Amino acid sequence: MSHGARLKELRERLGEIHDLRRAGWLLSWDQMTMMPPKGTEGRAHQMATLDKFAHELFVSEEIGQLLDGLSDHEAGLDPESAEAALIRVTRRDWEKARKVPPELRGEMTRAEVLGVPAWAEARKDSDFEAFLPHLEHHIELKRRYIECYADSGRSAYDILLDDYQEGARTEDVTRVFDRLKEVVIPLIREVASAEPVDTSFAHGHFPVEKQELFGREIIERLGYSSESWRLDPTVHPFATSMSINDIRLTTRYSEADLESIFHTSHEFGHGIYEHGIDPALERTPLVELNSMVLHESQSRLWENLVCRSRPFWRYFFPKVQELFPDQLGDVPEEAWWRSVNKVEPSFIRVEADEVTYGMHIILRFELEQEIFAGRLAARDIPEAWNVKMKEYLGLDVPDHAHGVLQDVHWAGGSFGYFPTYLLGTVASVQIWERMRADLPDLDSQMESGEFTPMREWLGEQMYRWGRRFTPDEMLERIVGGPFDAEPYLAYLQSKVEAIYGVRV
Amino acid sequence: MSHGARLKELRERLGEIHDLRRAGWLLSWDQMTMMPPKGTEGRAHQMATLDKFAHELFVSEEIGQLLDGLSDHEAGLDPESAEAALIRVTRRDWEKARKVPPELRGEMTRAEVLGVPAWAEARKDSDFEAFLPHLEHHIELKRRYIECYADSGRSAYDILLDDYQEGARTEDVTRVFDRLKEVVIPLIREVASAEPVDTSFAHGHFPVEKQELFGREIIERLGYSSESWRLDPTVHPFATSMSINDIRLTTRYSEADLESIFHTSHEFGHGIYEHGIDPALERTPLVELNSMVLHESQSRLWENLVCRSRPFWRYFFPKVQELFPDQLGDVPEEAWWRSVNKVEPSFIRVEADEVTYGMHIILRFELEQEIFAGRLAARDIPEAWNVKMKEYLGLDVPDHAHGVLQDVHWAGGSFGYFPTYLLGTVASVQIWERMRADLPDLDSQMESGEFTPMREWLGEQMYRWGRRFTPDEMLERIVGGPFDAEPYLAYLQSKVEAIYGVRV
Repeated sequence: MSHGARLKELRERLGEIHDLRRAGWLLSWDQMTMMPPKGTEGRAHQMATLDKFAHELFVSEEIGQLLDGLSDHEAGLDPESAEAALIRVTRRDWEKARKVPPELRGEMTRAEVLGVPAWAEARKDSDFEAFLPHLEHHIELKRRYIECYADSGRSAYDILLDDYQEGARTEDVTRVFDRLKEVVIPLIREVASAEPVDTSFAHGHFPVEKQELFGREIIERLGYSSESWRLDPTVHPFATSMSINDIRLTTRYSEADLESIFHTSHEFGHGIYEHGIDPALERTPLVELNSMVLHESQSRLWENLVCRSRPFWRYFFPKVQELFPDQLGDVPEEAWWRSVNKVEPSFIRVEADEVTYGMHIILRFELEQEIFAGRLAARDIPEAWNVKMKEYLGLDVPDHAHGVLQDVHWAGGSFGYFPTYLLGTVASVQIWERMRADLPDLDSQMESGEFTPMREWLGEQMYRWGRRFTPDEMLERIVGGPFDAEPYLAYLQSKVEAIYGVRV
Repeated sequence: MSHGARLKELRERLGEIHDLRRAGWLLSWDQMTMMPPKGTEGRAHQMATLDKFAHELFVSEEIGQLLDGLSDHEAGLDPESAEAALIRVTRRDWEKARKVPPELRGEMTRAEVLGVPAWAEARKDSDFEAFLPHLEHHIELKRRYIECYADSGRSAYDILLDDYQEGARTEDVTRVFDRLKEVVIPLIREVASAEPVDTSFAHGHFPVEKQELFGREIIERLGYSSESWRLDPTVHPFATSMSINDIRLTTRYSEADLESIFHTSHEFGHGIYEHGIDPALERTPLVELNSMVLHESQSRLWENLVCRSRPFWRYFFPKVQELFPDQLGDVPEEAWWRSVNKVEPSFIRVEADEVTYGMHIILRFELEQEIFAGRLAARDIPEAWNVKMKEYLGLDVPDHAHGVLQDVHWAGGSFGYFPTYLLGTVASVQIWERMRADLPDLDSQMESGEFTPMREWLGEQMYRWGRRFTPDEMLERIVGGPFDAEPYLAYLQSKVEAIYGVRV
């Protein structure tokens, strides 16, 4: 077989695997947004079957033989070319996926299927004991999973991180997070002693239909179009895509406030990243944006750096006033901007402001390391959790629903995921600063509702590459260096100073 | 391997194939109802891949070996048992599917993918010449398909029919249809000479939201529940199901009239049949209701025999009056009932009334036979079509969009499908008469909005069995005999006499 024929064969197989996976994503999207409740059982079978075949086809000997046969060809390619990247990424994923025995994979899937509803029940009753056996089982399975990579020479937690951020090292993450703690913990204390921000006008009655209209108006300005996107309501907002031209956002509306704006713009950030990938990479592993850090950098960038900025509200606040004249007609723009940037320690991560958010993540990151270093037993997690909440945010956790049971991640067996949220936030400010240097008119563009230059810059520098580079390489290409806490800290300090008149 | 182990293995494989197929159904439903327009290309790949794997897995040697190994076991089973039916149905489908070479299957799929959009364009422009090459290609491929079954001893058209109605024979269909022609053609002429029915009040402005509300109210009374069903708007109404407890109906709303009621109740009929299958048959070929005739018997039964009946409107007309008081407040119930049963020859099959509908089908059935007997070339179909329209309905076809180009079926390569619509309608009245004999209070139940006894009777007699019997056996079990045109003709005559005062 010629190189050309091998490559064609590889592309065809990978294309079909991609089709099965994206079909699975649609089934999942449908389950969250459309499916009647009693469809659950049939859907679980369908998703398991799609996952099984996609996995079996991918880890097959045939893929390995094609990759082997392409080694010579690959050696002669420009390593930065899409073709070289395709072979390299496929080989990496193939070697990684084959190390996990099908039985363990099956057990992990079953544990997830059972763990998530058990967690949902336990959270409702704030009953950690009910969830504990599932948590213990997940940890046990993850230990066995880590053992599959014993010959990699990587630490247990590095192996967990790698599933969400290829090549991430615990020590690098720790260095960034430790630096954040040095500034953020005292900053939170300073804010606590400052004059509180008035947000009374931001609570009231905001009909969902109007919020939906306004949310759409915002993201249409940012780059959403019904030609290639959908936006639907759901309980837990998320974004997914069936293809580069089929992007599905979901958001959550509460009649009591306008938080939906930030859910919607957050998910828009995920969506625009997927939508911006070079169409030539479609149906290959190079459209699988597996760096949760880079993904999160875009959701946080559009949610926070864009939609919580002064220039953004210079353009949009008159529109929101027009839509809700009774509640916001008399509110000054500055007061509104302060209200959407209020800093206040709270129990729930997904409701946290930009300053306190990081501490929620650092807490989880530290606990996960303790667990997999064998120093923290599952049953002792709640106590450790509550101690850290007191230390970092000064809060006494009232019950487990407001503490250790709040997130779904561990219930689904995801350990090592949380740090990507904060790393992504750190990266978002590095990317923002770099973009601002290239686009000196950024603020005035935003003030006039013009987001195209910004979207195009991000598309050109980042989105279009898909997975052609490793996450570290990609960050290096965009910002010229590795993770750096300083731009993020400077951004937080400056915002806190503007609103609360304090800094550290 | 023991029989038990073989059966378990067979069930597992068939379950996975079922999962892939139903996942494909979801992708298709999503494409029609939810998908952003530019998602088409990715979706086409995903659907083709799911179809390919489901087919490959099914026609595999492994399935054949499992079936062979189960022959002895099968011989000892009660042939009416679910287990015997599973083995028998699977063997039949397997043997049938293997006769078609993958290349021909692939060509037919491609011809469908290309043919449908080409037809949509051609219909828009009423341009038969533009569609002709696709039609010729489909006919050529179907001839090759028919040759795959040359050793079956069946006629070409019998082979086509079998794809939509297992075991159907052209001569039986012809016998029923010829009898219908004897009565229906003169009946249409009689109606044409009678006093026309006033339907002016049924045309006006009926806001879609109210129609949707009312449509839901109706089908909830009939047996729809949001626990296991959805109803969404679409261009061409259809019903599908992801599982017994995940039934998806779609319907079409026009602000100008209340026709949506009949689309919705028609699709409800399809849905309730799928929903009523014994859950023990889930994820096996026995939930694949492949008799289009039996399926259509239920859509027509709920649409026509229920929703166009006097007792139905005795209950629902006051509600529709309340909802649209300006248009219908002063209309007598009897006038409304007459209006929804108006008989008038028209060009478009899907808009035809109960009396003229049959002639649209018979026309297509006769042309299809001529085509596959080699007596009618594709390019001569329009003329033959128009001649028959004149003969059967007295109409001069103004253009091909109102004639030969109106239906999607031939564009997708479906020949032999049309007769199932009329056979289903014939069967619906046979089933209805049998049910009425068992439920003497049927009319008074409907008058008081009580449809449970009826739904339960149909569930018990028909729905729960899924595909455990052949279509002929199933009809025999329900009504005690084969297709019989007389009950349907008596029903039409009686309705026409009540409304128009004529009969033949």
